[in-house]
Amino acid sequence: MSDLVRFGVSLEKSLLDRFDRFIREQNYTNRSEAFRDMIRQELIKKEWVEGDDVAGAITLIYDHHRKDLLNKITDIQHNFQKLIISTQHIHLDHHNCLEIIAVRGNPSEVQKLMGLMKVIKGVKHGTLSMSSTGKEIE
Amino acid sequence: MSDLVRFGVSLEKSLLDRFDRFIREQNYTNRSEAFRDMIRQELIKKEWVEGDDVAGAITLIYDHHRKDLLNKITDIQHNFQKLIISTQHIHLDHHNCLEIIAVRGNPSEVQKLMGLMKVIKGVKHGTLSMSSTGKEIE
Amino acid sequence: MSDLVRFGVSLEKSLLDRFDRFIREQNYTNRSEAFRDMIRQELIKKEWVEGDDVAGAITLIYDHHRKDLLNKITDIQHNFQKLIISTQHIHLDHHNCLEIIAVRGNPSEVQKLMGLMKVIKGVKHGTLSMSSTGKEIE
Amino acid sequence: MSDLVRFGVSLEKSLLDRFDRFIREQNYTNRSEAFRDMIRQELIKKEWVEGDDVAGAITLIYDHHRKDLLNKITDIQHNFQKLIISTQHIHLDHHNCLEIIAVRGNPSEVQKLMGLMKVIKGVKHGTLSMSSTGKEIE
Repeated sequence: MSDLVRFGVSLEKSLLDRFDRFIREQNYTNRSEAFRDMIRQELIKKEWVEGDDVAGAITLIYDHHRKDLLNKITDIQHNFQKLIISTQHIHLDHHNCLEIIAVRGNPSEVQKLMGLMKVIKGVKHGTLSMSSTGKEIE
Repeated sequence: MSDLVRFGVSLEKSLLDRFDRFIREQNYTNRSEAFRDMIRQELIKKEWVEGDDVAGAITLIYDHHRKDLLNKITDIQHNFQKLIISTQHIHLDHHNCLEIIAVRGNPSEVQKLMGLMKVIKGVKHGTLSMSSTGKEIE
Repeated sequence: MSDLVRFGVSLEKSLLDRFDRFIREQNYTNRSEAFRDMIRQELIKKEWVEGDDVAGAITLIYDHHRKDLLNKITDIQHNFQKLIISTQHIHLDHHNCLEIIAVRGNPSEVQKLMGLMKVIKGVKHGTLSMSSTGKEIE
Repeated sequence: MSDLVRFGVSLEKSLLDRFDRFIREQNYTNRSEAFRDMIRQELIKKEWVEGDDVAGAITLIYDHHRKDLLNKITDIQHNFQKLIISTQHIHLDHHNCLEIIAVRGNPSEVQKLMGLMKVIKGVKHGTLSMSSTGKEIE
């Protein structure tokens, strides 16, 4: 963590009052903490467009009974093994699995991996949480 | 516009450097101006969930040759005339029209109006710009 | 409008029942109409990434009393006059204006125009409705 | 998995050609598979608004050296233990951790849990992947 720098910000009183109400509702400890989060949110958006080392999670829902589904998912994951850190697998019911794949690497490679798994027959839904390695937001 | 209040914010030096680069790329005049925009963005999201007087724009693309389309759009707009401030109509080509409807009022009423027009046969696309009357973000 | 083509789609009965309930709630006339809208939504996303002729609306909220604001907005709009079809201006109250700018042209040019106006002092909020010229979605 | 039902859909030839190009680019096996995904996407959006049993993943980036952070995160997770299925923890570097929490339960409870963890000092970013138990999308 780098050194703290203190600087002044000027806001209209009415806007600041509204902001203070907002950060109380969100349970932020103080204004600086809320600003930090808003800044990081913007920086992470930028990382996914311009950066080359991001982290995140791919979440899949699939029916593991579908023929060849597990083979196909495993094959694709092996082709992208450099991106995949680890996988968490949850049996939701007799048919449905929730698989959460922690990923790290180039943002367009991560999106390609996601795209390939999402269209496998039996995969019902796929989402990608775009997060960060933490390095570019501290 | 209410009085300006000046207060201090503490940020990690490395995060502040990244933020300064970001606001330069975005062409912001200074940090306070960037913070203002980020705060307003959050307040406007809140207005559309909890508020009762928002403003915005509904954008439609439609084929005006479709039977009854103009009658249906006009009928619906009359049922919501309290919400509609004015309309801008552009002939994109022989078939396609771009219609932009400036709206103001209760957010769920605005979304209902949008939903009803979007599903009319011949309406190819509808979007809703969620903005503000300006009162709650100053 | 081009000729209609009819083709078969296979869906799980339970998924189709849920979809039929969804399109009734949304007031769609029939399944084909709902599919059309979902397809167009995807094609328009693609147009804004890969295309070169899109249409849409930029919505601004600003305080017209802010020094130089009107000059700056007008200057920028003149620099992008090829993109701007027409403008709708609404006086929300004594201070606040809602300005809706109908635009057409290259998607990255449209986003650049939006970015430049959004950061002008006194502009409180800007949104961009990403729509289409209609040509690529029929 | 329920029985397959086959039904007819009518689309303009030019729109269908564009859709076929889109699904080839996305690597879908056939049109039905692409329609299934678009339908499920809408149904999952609905589940998160109206439903009472959803699944998903909360992704956090945090600096584990921050005083009390681990205690706070653990305390909150225990208060919501009924929602939390399992947790995956990755050491990104000396400071930064990626924690992915698989969740299942009421959508507003899940969002509350996410909101409470996101504002802890030292948590740099939080995202929520809104997915499904799979039951309502088959």
